[in-house]
Amino acid sequence: MSDRITLAHGAGGKEMEALIRKLFARVKLRSINNAVGLDYFDDASQIITSTSNVIVSIDSYTVDPIFFPGGNIGKLAATGSINDVAVMGASPVAALDSIVVEEGFSLRDLEEIIDSLVKVFESEGVALLGGDFKVMPKGKIDKIVITTVVIGYLPDSHKIILDSKARPGDKVIVSGTIGEHGAVITALRMGIDAELGELKSDCMPVTRVMKIAMENGEIHAAKDPTRGGLAMALNEIAEKSGVSVIVDEEEIPIRDEVIALSEMLGVDPLSLACEGRVVMTVDPNDAENVVKALHRNGFSDARIIGEVKKEDEGIVLLRTKAGGLRILEKPTGELTPRIC
Amino acid sequence: MSDRITLAHGAGGKEMEALIRKLFARVKLRSINNAVGLDYFDDASQIITSTSNVIVSIDSYTVDPIFFPGGNIGKLAATGSINDVAVMGASPVAALDSIVVEEGFSLRDLEEIIDSLVKVFESEGVALLGGDFKVMPKGKIDKIVITTVVIGYLPDSHKIILDSKARPGDKVIVSGTIGEHGAVITALRMGIDAELGELKSDCMPVTRVMKIAMENGEIHAAKDPTRGGLAMALNEIAEKSGVSVIVDEEEIPIRDEVIALSEMLGVDPLSLACEGRVVMTVDPNDAENVVKALHRNGFSDARIIGEVKKEDEGIVLLRTKAGGLRILEKPTGELTPRIC
Repeated sequence: MSDRITLAHGAGGKEMEALIRKLFARVKLRSINNAVGLDYFDDASQIITSTSNVIVSIDSYTVDPIFFPGGNIGKLAATGSINDVAVMGASPVAALDSIVVEEGFSLRDLEEIIDSLVKVFESEGVALLGGDFKVMPKGKIDKIVITTVVIGYLPDSHKIILDSKARPGDKVIVSGTIGEHGAVITALRMGIDAELGELKSDCMPVTRVMKIAMENGEIHAAKDPTRGGLAMALNEIAEKSGVSVIVDEEEIPIRDEVIALSEMLGVDPLSLACEGRVVMTVDPNDAENVVKALHRNGFSDARIIGEVKKEDEGIVLLRTKAGGLRILEKPTGELTPRIC
Repeated sequence: MSDRITLAHGAGGKEMEALIRKLFARVKLRSINNAVGLDYFDDASQIITSTSNVIVSIDSYTVDPIFFPGGNIGKLAATGSINDVAVMGASPVAALDSIVVEEGFSLRDLEEIIDSLVKVFESEGVALLGGDFKVMPKGKIDKIVITTVVIGYLPDSHKIILDSKARPGDKVIVSGTIGEHGAVITALRMGIDAELGELKSDCMPVTRVMKIAMENGEIHAAKDPTRGGLAMALNEIAEKSGVSVIVDEEEIPIRDEVIALSEMLGVDPLSLACEGRVVMTVDPNDAENVVKALHRNGFSDARIIGEVKKEDEGIVLLRTKAGGLRILEKPTGELTPRIC
């Protein structure tokens, strides 16, 4: 086997079969309850569900660069789709992946990427049931695009958590410092790697955050603020729930390095993507409990940053450090493409 | 809204939201049993399953050219993943899509592609529950790549149909003429469009074929012969089932145009992809019934092309028109990249 991906590896014949079997040999969780999974390399996979309430999410990951401080496209692809399922209140159980790679791509890099993807799934108890693999000729795709699907169960005891379920009076909590993923990727793309210092992407599964939060309070709405950052996530909640959200700039946890980079890059840190954070609206009687529980479990930057109001439906207001009040709009324009 | 896709359309902000809502407004089947589906534009979607036996498949579609006689990448992306679920014996019920598109892509083309995708899902009763949308800068991806996931139910009364379940004595049936999709795409790529004449891709859902076949006989193994064509599909069945398969070249239905093109292109028509055919192994007592039922329902080219044997485990043998017997190998080498 050559150390580069060739078109033959994507042709559906002998070479592809050998490559796929080799690349995915490292997967330990290959099926659910011994149903038809990865070992079968069949046309589709099987889930014998243990609940009738199934949550499913798909995302394509196009991040550039594909390796970055704190992760790579494989880690991100597993994490991002897990997070989309987790913020609905569900437990991720199964995944599928589809990889489109450029002819000539390094086999070693591909192995490292798949290794990272598989590690996330395994550490989360998510079985990788199957997938697809395509090769595009040199110059027809930039390196690699990975699509993942994650399937989760919503236990009968849990209500589904929706963007549209925030209630006036709810407290708004973020689970940690925001914008690190977006700041890191943007800085790398702008060629100011040296300014990053120790800063890393916050890329990580939010399943534990969600579990702790749900065990310690009534979570009404939750999102992982990826593209468009906290600004977009809060606007979506406000709009879909028919409420307004008011947040306190002073209370929003942001690392100094992210603030410094944002100033250099001329971007609003509230629009920078996170890949391991949750913003949630929580029953006001439970909010302190939830934050304390998160702190006890190592999420020491979790914070109440604001609250949900009835008035001014669909609007997000930011109380600035200077004491003013301004509308926090949905981000517009290009932001950074290929952030995730 | 401009008539070209911009990077802002993929940035997760205001422009993306407006575009997505517009593009997918045409979808009529937006949820299953009023669970959380497309209307919610939430982080993930919900399926309240009516069976505990769920079949799921993912595929990324990279076909080049994206418009071809008989379809386009949208029709193919919906059809291909439906077919992967159908050949397991399941009924497709839900889908998700993820689109990665090049900056500058024509909005009209995108609408046409999504229209084709949505039409296939709707005609099959498959609800489109959600998806993802990314834009890559000009030159970083060739036009568009679509990934689809299709989820199906396997009724309790149906056994799952696996590549590994072919039995000695089974008859091998193909549901129609083979290789048209592969021949069309390869010819277009080689620039010999004029030679195509009336030939079209065979791209179409195989759900009806599977339904008719299952109602009229015991289907042990089934595949849709896509990349690697009939040669690859038969080899997979032989290998996974631990049997040999012997097929009769004389009996394999192939259009004259496909044979002529194959000769011009220097390819084996048995390695050319189909996107609307099934090859299945069927209990010998039922095989004639199945073929007759397919004929009655308009699949007039369905044919018994061979049988499954116990000897020579893992081998596919072709009885040639000249009367000889040769091993039909798994295809190797490049074939045509981006056939699907």
